[in-house]
Amino acid sequence: MSQYAEKAIKGDILSGARLIRLLEDGDPAGIEDLKVLYPHTGNAYLIGLTGPPGAGKSTLVDQIVAEFRSREKTVGVIAIDPSSPFSGGAILGDRVRMRQHATDKGVFVRSMGTRGHLGGLSRAAYETSLVMDAMGYDVVLVETVGVGQDEVSIVDLAHTTVVVSLPGMGDGIQAMKAGILEIGDVFIVNKADKPGAEEVVQNLEIMLEMRDHDEKSWRPPVIKTVAVENQGITELVDAFMGHRQYLVDGGLLEKRRYSRELHFAQELVKEIAYRKISDAVAGSETLRELVAALKNRSIDPYTAAEKLLRGLNFDPL
Amino acid sequence: MSQYAEKAIKGDILSGARLIRLLEDGDPAGIEDLKVLYPHTGNAYLIGLTGPPGAGKSTLVDQIVAEFRSREKTVGVIAIDPSSPFSGGAILGDRVRMRQHATDKGVFVRSMGTRGHLGGLSRAAYETSLVMDAMGYDVVLVETVGVGQDEVSIVDLAHTTVVVSLPGMGDGIQAMKAGILEIGDVFIVNKADKPGAEEVVQNLEIMLEMRDHDEKSWRPPVIKTVAVENQGITELVDAFMGHRQYLVDGGLLEKRRYSRELHFAQELVKEIAYRKISDAVAGSETLRELVAALKNRSIDPYTAAEKLLRGLNFDPL
Repeated sequence: MSQYAEKAIKGDILSGARLIRLLEDGDPAGIEDLKVLYPHTGNAYLIGLTGPPGAGKSTLVDQIVAEFRSREKTVGVIAIDPSSPFSGGAILGDRVRMRQHATDKGVFVRSMGTRGHLGGLSRAAYETSLVMDAMGYDVVLVETVGVGQDEVSIVDLAHTTVVVSLPGMGDGIQAMKAGILEIGDVFIVNKADKPGAEEVVQNLEIMLEMRDHDEKSWRPPVIKTVAVENQGITELVDAFMGHRQYLVDGGLLEKRRYSRELHFAQELVKEIAYRKISDAVAGSETLRELVAALKNRSIDPYTAAEKLLRGLNFDPL
Repeated sequence: MSQYAEKAIKGDILSGARLIRLLEDGDPAGIEDLKVLYPHTGNAYLIGLTGPPGAGKSTLVDQIVAEFRSREKTVGVIAIDPSSPFSGGAILGDRVRMRQHATDKGVFVRSMGTRGHLGGLSRAAYETSLVMDAMGYDVVLVETVGVGQDEVSIVDLAHTTVVVSLPGMGDGIQAMKAGILEIGDVFIVNKADKPGAEEVVQNLEIMLEMRDHDEKSWRPPVIKTVAVENQGITELVDAFMGHRQYLVDGGLLEKRRYSRELHFAQELVKEIAYRKISDAVAGSETLRELVAALKNRSIDPYTAAEKLLRGLNFDPL
């Protein structure tokens, strides 16, 4: 019990990495370690960065890390790629990228794909962020490839949500997706030296202006970057820190932290409850009958689920 | 009770649309309707189509629908866009697209975004596919924008999973993502008249050849299309039908249907159980204490979830 927590809290990278692996494997010992770690969390500044494939997110993250390092902040990076079957830093791209930070002890990178993590990638990122937070990293940067559900779940995870766009994507309608606008605290138009960059910036600015807002609400900045040439990165990190200050001043950082914990507590309740139910009905006659009925379509899934749960008592103490 | 089911089974479009809306709103009456519908389902051929933004999926779907119509098949289309807050056919893109099928009663299109559907988009698509299936559509085509979790969940939903690629995406590493390769039954390289198309095809062919397979297993075809010029669509729909026949011949269609029902039955068990638990603890002293403790970080989410569930009895009958 608690093999790695004590050392990870002191910043030991090997213990941190092993604990993350333990959590990936769904080892209950990992959860015990997390409980030990937990009181040492709540200090890291969590940034979530999302955007479509090909937007240059990896290079951006590299440069953002370098900028934070030059400001003497340590950084944990969680790179989530749901389309990759690899995890735990074994992803192919991982060896290619982040090379400039390979020997820097102030930078800790973990990649995760679809393998492992029974609780899903969102849960995996949450747990890894807790470990990095407890290890003492000042900033934890979560990068997700893709558009879709990921963007929404990154909001549950981060204090500041960053949306990356690039010139020439889609047909205008695509760029103006209200869903993306709603979640972003900072917008990046990367590859800003390419044709059409100014148009994307203008579109974003117009849509952000139309968003519901009052004097007190945060107006997300739109920052142009050319990550491969390290252009715009200082302004970008300034924008992150500006948003963080806004959250602190309004007492919102506390609120975001709390809703983050509440969200994952709810997820855990669902998961633990389902496991208890599964254990309770495993091998039972009821389950056998329901599965057979589903198989020959003589029962619908709704009635099947209700029947299964009718056999269970929920009595609050 | 069962306001719309009877009429929807007879193919009434208005009733089908209203039932789908009811389900989106989480109205329990919708579930009762689904139970009535269910015995009339199991006939539609379900195709899931996924790929990155900008791959031309909307145009592809348009042309696929036209091709199925020319083969005298009726088609239901479910367009999922998790980044859009709109749903129920109100999405902006919906008015722009599918114009050629607007007056065709053999085509029924529903769009869904993040709004509504408490059970998530995967559940929403499942329920909508049940309604379309019962309405008698021969083919139900589910289109998801995005790469990520969606691709994985579309596999739970469809009999045939189609992955769309396009030339010039990413850097080669991206094209070879094993996760994408594993899920595809048919691969499309759209915009095949653009430079680099042949390279993408070759990459896919090589990777598919390296995939675990034996003589009996399905070898996914890679089909080149230029959707805007209706090129390759006949071959594509032939490939769909070929895969369907393969599933039928091997008794696999039955299996895929069953695992689809089982998957959603499990999801429903989780959801109903969580609702029961929430109802049971609502307003209780235990819940108030745990929420307060989470707020001031004096308890971790894991311990909180365990404590909450310790107050509940799970006794299988």
